[in-house]
Amino acid sequence: MTEKKAFQDYYADEVSYCYGCGRLNDKGLQIKSYWDGEEAVCTYRPLAHHMAIPGFVYGGLIASLIDCHSTGTAAAAAYRAENRGMDTEPAHRFVTASLHVDYLRPTPIEAGLTIRARVEEMSGRKVIVSSRLLADDELCARGEAVLVRMPEKWLVNR
Amino acid sequence: MTEKKAFQDYYADEVSYCYGCGRLNDKGLQIKSYWDGEEAVCTYRPLAHHMAIPGFVYGGLIASLIDCHSTGTAAAAAYRAENRGMDTEPAHRFVTASLHVDYLRPTPIEAGLTIRARVEEMSGRKVIVSSRLLADDELCARGEAVLVRMPEKWLVNR
Repeated sequence: MTEKKAFQDYYADEVSYCYGCGRLNDKGLQIKSYWDGEEAVCTYRPLAHHMAIPGFVYGGLIASLIDCHSTGTAAAAAYRAENRGMDTEPAHRFVTASLHVDYLRPTPIEAGLTIRARVEEMSGRKVIVSSRLLADDELCARGEAVLVRMPEKWLVNR
Repeated sequence: MTEKKAFQDYYADEVSYCYGCGRLNDKGLQIKSYWDGEEAVCTYRPLAHHMAIPGFVYGGLIASLIDCHSTGTAAAAAYRAENRGMDTEPAHRFVTASLHVDYLRPTPIEAGLTIRARVEEMSGRKVIVSSRLLADDELCARGEAVLVRMPEKWLVNR
């Protein structure tokens, strides 16, 4: 057995401080995403203070999970489309151009959350990722994110 | 001079634990919203760990601010439409049915953020609120939230 690395474990250090998905942000959510066939999967257990009203998860956390899981899925899909590993160069990284979340029902805070994402479209510098957020297998939210390649200049002159 | 209370300061205790806007959630963002003419305004200064990549705010925070400022704006607008104060009964509270955010440019993390929201539509149990997020007066994101009246049963049997 080999150790299973998440998409985010391959990010270069300088892009690993994101509050949502950076493994080096010790105050952040540190989400992890993995392939499961054609879907990318992320699981997350909300903390008590992530509530909206007592018993339910606040919408901003759901948006954050979908956002970061979608950028990770876009990156992983870009490597996959080139049939190469996430540990090879050049690196693919994406940022969010738009995010849409439909909150279908209140999300119980004591549930384990699973976000299952799928690439709907890849073209040039743009990727569209759709997501389903489940709480103990019950569908609670749907997301759609439009991701674009991170401009290289964002990582220069900072 | 009288003390100026924010929309969120009028929420009943049992709905004041939201991570984004609850004044009783001591680990949360505790945003505050106020009328400025026809717009509702919220200001927020991101913390260092709210980053996406170094120098810029992560998108989940932006979505969270827009989300909670929109629910507050919907509630305040419902009182205003009835020409009564937020300290009168019955209480109006809204939850988010859908949230859309367009990230127009990277949002500098050292800037003061201002979210300016406007009610676009009010009908029955639904309110649509549009938002602009500015970083030191530069437009960085736009939001649109669809809010619906919080079902009373959510606050019963919990």
